[in-house]
Amino acid sequence: MAGRLSLNQATIKRATVKQAVDGCAKHGVPSIGLWREPVADAGIEQTRKLVRQAGLRVSSLCRGGFLTDPDNKNAIDDNKRAIDEAHTLGTDTLVMVVGGVPDRDLIGARQRVQDGIEVLTPYAQEAGVILALEPMHPIFCADRGVLSTLKQALDWAERFDAGVVVDAVHVWWDPELDAQIERAGRRIASYQVCDWLNPLPPDVLLGRALPGDGNIDLDRLTRHVAKTGYSKDVEVEIFNADLWAADPDEVIAEVVRRYHAFVEPAL
Amino acid sequence: MAGRLSLNQATIKRATVKQAVDGCAKHGVPSIGLWREPVADAGIEQTRKLVRQAGLRVSSLCRGGFLTDPDNKNAIDDNKRAIDEAHTLGTDTLVMVVGGVPDRDLIGARQRVQDGIEVLTPYAQEAGVILALEPMHPIFCADRGVLSTLKQALDWAERFDAGVVVDAVHVWWDPELDAQIERAGRRIASYQVCDWLNPLPPDVLLGRALPGDGNIDLDRLTRHVAKTGYSKDVEVEIFNADLWAADPDEVIAEVVRRYHAFVEPAL
Repeated sequence: MAGRLSLNQATIKRATVKQAVDGCAKHGVPSIGLWREPVADAGIEQTRKLVRQAGLRVSSLCRGGFLTDPDNKNAIDDNKRAIDEAHTLGTDTLVMVVGGVPDRDLIGARQRVQDGIEVLTPYAQEAGVILALEPMHPIFCADRGVLSTLKQALDWAERFDAGVVVDAVHVWWDPELDAQIERAGRRIASYQVCDWLNPLPPDVLLGRALPGDGNIDLDRLTRHVAKTGYSKDVEVEIFNADLWAADPDEVIAEVVRRYHAFVEPAL
Repeated sequence: MAGRLSLNQATIKRATVKQAVDGCAKHGVPSIGLWREPVADAGIEQTRKLVRQAGLRVSSLCRGGFLTDPDNKNAIDDNKRAIDEAHTLGTDTLVMVVGGVPDRDLIGARQRVQDGIEVLTPYAQEAGVILALEPMHPIFCADRGVLSTLKQALDWAERFDAGVVVDAVHVWWDPELDAQIERAGRRIASYQVCDWLNPLPPDVLLGRALPGDGNIDLDRLTRHVAKTGYSKDVEVEIFNADLWAADPDEVIAEVVRRYHAFVEPAL
């Protein structure tokens, strides 16, 4: 068994929930990170059943967020549904990708995210679901996530008693990282790993590699996260065109090997 | 005349020094930011003569840096040549792009940059040239610049009495930006503008747009920079495949229009 490894579904994007769950069971992966879209395809009750029958933990649900549009009433409603889904699926962690800048007003966009989180906080707390604020690599500030550093995520998380996500690919470059991980302590709701693909592919969203294939010192980062007392699962989440084109079964087998080689020794 | 506008040569990458200088003169651009490669093609003395005859200021020379290789003796020598060239060309500002991570050791790479700057500092000071440390957008941390934020640049600049570059495209996303610009004060050796292209093109290096065509609030940023007392030229530096394919003369005319519309009112 790969102790605390969680396979994030995005790593085998083309697989159905059933294929992903079966793959985890076959390869001894004890936990899975689910995405709302394939879960909707499979049906939420059916997903819950499949996961439970396989004896898997659900480490997180991706994703809520996208709160930066000036009119975000629909986004608030959708986030409430995401909170409900997380609760139903038996995970305490909803990953929040907060949304980009619809215009030139970055400060306004960041304010709207905070306003949205404030509205969602009591709903999430009642459901026992942590809003896990994910700082996104600044490359995504315009189109996907105006929450850009772990420091900023913690400023917000402390205000709303929320959690944060530490995803290696989003934070590895940050000169303040060590100090902010220490500050984060028990607020780390999800630790996600992959590596930084260099050179980047034409679609930077897919600029992720298997642990060990890029420039991130995952051993060092994992030790820092472990030192905070983080004891939850470690998700391997890789958006990569080659992995998506490969046989999911082989991808899971390789993820397990990389986890043992580059992550587990540092936990 | 476009008061403090400087045309960075990279904006019209295919043009020779002579074409760039003539274009500035024709369109009333009073200043130019030079690059070492086209200057070497034209000859440094010839470049000096052309610039002087046209009555242009040289706002900066791009670029020194690339100090992260474990064996960086050659890089040190090359940086000394760059300092000499800046002095000869009559600019006090050498833009430093510090280099990427050759392996997984980001902390070691950052240390080697600082060691290199320490070695170069007396040489630059004797030549009257400011080493202008340029924080690079974190997207370039792996391949081009491990100096990732203005805060980090200032930490180093204060240690070595160096300058910093504030380039809109590299820093616009930074939640700490306002405070760090205020901290920077007179250390801002160069202020460079362009906009953030969204969606990004396949080569992210070319993810820059004309002022007004992207997500950066240049008015706000420029006001903050101006408040520090910054009184030097403002470089428009745009790496953009469409602009490079266009007629340089038309590009310069458009740069002047954008400067008047999006930058000058805030100075």
